[in-house]
Amino acid sequence: MRTVVSSATRTVVISPDDPFVIIGERINPTGRKQLLAEMQAGDLSRVRRDAVSQTESGAHILDVNAGVPGADEVALLSQVVQEVMAVTDLPLCFDSANPAALEAALALYSGKPLINSVTGEESSMEKVLPLVKKYNAAVIAMPNDEGGIRMDPQERLTVARKILERAQDYGIPPEDVIIDCQAMAVSADHRAGLVTLETIRLVRQELGNNTVVGASNISFGLPDRKALNATFLAMAIAAGLTCAITNPNVAEIRKTIRAADLFMGRDEFAMNWITAFRAEQEKEG
Amino acid sequence: MRTVVSSATRTVVISPDDPFVIIGERINPTGRKQLLAEMQAGDLSRVRRDAVSQTESGAHILDVNAGVPGADEVALLSQVVQEVMAVTDLPLCFDSANPAALEAALALYSGKPLINSVTGEESSMEKVLPLVKKYNAAVIAMPNDEGGIRMDPQERLTVARKILERAQDYGIPPEDVIIDCQAMAVSADHRAGLVTLETIRLVRQELGNNTVVGASNISFGLPDRKALNATFLAMAIAAGLTCAITNPNVAEIRKTIRAADLFMGRDEFAMNWITAFRAEQEKEG
Repeated sequence: MRTVVSSATRTVVISPDDPFVIIGERINPTGRKQLLAEMQAGDLSRVRRDAVSQTESGAHILDVNAGVPGADEVALLSQVVQEVMAVTDLPLCFDSANPAALEAALALYSGKPLINSVTGEESSMEKVLPLVKKYNAAVIAMPNDEGGIRMDPQERLTVARKILERAQDYGIPPEDVIIDCQAMAVSADHRAGLVTLETIRLVRQELGNNTVVGASNISFGLPDRKALNATFLAMAIAAGLTCAITNPNVAEIRKTIRAADLFMGRDEFAMNWITAFRAEQEKEG
Repeated sequence: MRTVVSSATRTVVISPDDPFVIIGERINPTGRKQLLAEMQAGDLSRVRRDAVSQTESGAHILDVNAGVPGADEVALLSQVVQEVMAVTDLPLCFDSANPAALEAALALYSGKPLINSVTGEESSMEKVLPLVKKYNAAVIAMPNDEGGIRMDPQERLTVARKILERAQDYGIPPEDVIIDCQAMAVSADHRAGLVTLETIRLVRQELGNNTVVGASNISFGLPDRKALNATFLAMAIAAGLTCAITNPNVAEIRKTIRAADLFMGRDEFAMNWITAFRAEQEKEG
C-alpha cells in the first residue's frame, strides 16, 4: 500500500517499495524542559530551529506537537504549524489528542497532512475520523481501545481492523491509515520489543497497511538510548516497518536507516549509502 | 531447536531462547595479508593473540581456518587448532573444505565442535557427513549444490531440506545441523540482503533449525563496513538468526548484538545491557 502525504509543494510516498520515511520527532515539548518553558512564554524560536535542523538532516515529514500544560492548544498548535510552515516545505504530522486543535491546524494547512492519532476508542474514532475525511488527511491509528494498550500482537491486529473498518465507513481508504505498532519501554516489559516486531509483521502480512512506531519509546529508562533506538529501528525495518517518528538529527539513526534501506533492496548500486558516506567524510575532513 | 557444542570444559547452547551466539571469524588468513604471510612462515603468534582477544571480547565459539595456499592444510589446521586450544577453552569451529584436514583436527579435539561446512553437493555430503557422525560434531550446512549458490529463498530451503534428510540418513539429528543463510555482497546484487533475511525466516518457520551467516560478506566492496555489518546483524536477528560468524573485537558489533538480544526478549531487566554499558564507561573513564 502507498500512503501519500504532501505540503503545498512536496509529496512524500510511504510504501514498502520506497526508502524508509523519517517523521522528525523534535517539535514536541514532552520531556523537553527548555522547549516547554519557551513555548509557555510564547517563544517559538527553538521550534523554528528544530524545523530547519530536521529538514537539513533529511527528515521527510515533521511531527508537530504543542501539548503545553496550561496553554490553549487550539491557538498554540496553529501558531506552531504556521511558524514551521514558514521555514520548511516538508509535509507535517499534527500530533494532538484535541480534535479542536487538530481542526484548526487542518483548516490552515495546504496539502495532505498526517494526523497523529486516532485510537480504537469510540470517543476517539467518532471525533478524529470525520476530520480525516473532511480535510482529506492521512491518519496514524493506535491499536488500543477502551481495554487499554494490548501486549498481544493478535489483539493489536484486532483493534487495528476495527479502526480500519470504521475508517472505511467514513469513506477513508485503507492506504490513508498507518498502523502504529506501539513501541513500549523494554525496561518495563522485556517482551515489549518482540510484541512490536510481531505486530509489524502481522499488519504487513494480514492487512498490508503501512506501519509506524515512535522509535524512541523502546529505550525509555535505559542508558545509551541512541544505540538502542538505532538497533530497534533496523529490526523493525526488517520486520516490515515503513516509517518512524524519530530524531533525524542523530547520526546513528540516519546511518542505520540508510543501511537498512540498502539491505531491504531499496538502494540500488548502494548509491545513497556511498553518497552519504562521502558527504560525511567531506564534512569531517 | 537447541544445538549444543562444547570444548573439554565449556558448553555453548545455540537456540532462539538463548542469547545470540558469536562465532569469532578472525583466525582465517583469507583477505588478511599479514596473517597469511606469518602462517606461511610457520609463525602462529598472531593466531594465539587473535584467539585470546576474541575470547576476551566475548566470542562464544572460535572459527579456525588454515587455508594457506601452498601449505599442507592437514598438518597446518591441526597445528593451528592445538595453538588455539592452548590459549582458550572456547569451543571451536573447524573451517575447511578439505575432509582430511577436518578429520585430523576432529581426531585431536576434546568436546563437540562445529564443522564449517557441508554443502548440498553430493561430493561434499558423502565426505563431510560421515565425519560429523563419527566424531559426534555439529555442522554448518550451506544450501548450495551442483547448481551453485541460489538467489531464491525457496530454492535455498529445498537444498537445506536435502542436506537435512541426508544427515538423518547418516544418523545425524536435525539439531546438529545449522543452516547457513548465505549473506552475499549487496554491492553485487541489491536483493542479496532480502534473500538472506527471507531465507532465515523460512528456515525458522518451515524447519526450525538454527541459522548462521558469515555477517561480513554482506558489506563486501562498500565503505563503512562495520556499520553495515552491525545493522545487517540486527535485521537478521529480528528475522530469527541465532548465531553469526563475525568479528567480536568490533565494539559496534558487540553493542548491536546486545541491543538485539534485549529486543528479542533475551535480556530480562536489561541486565546484560546495563552491565556492559557500565563496564565500557569504567574502561573509558
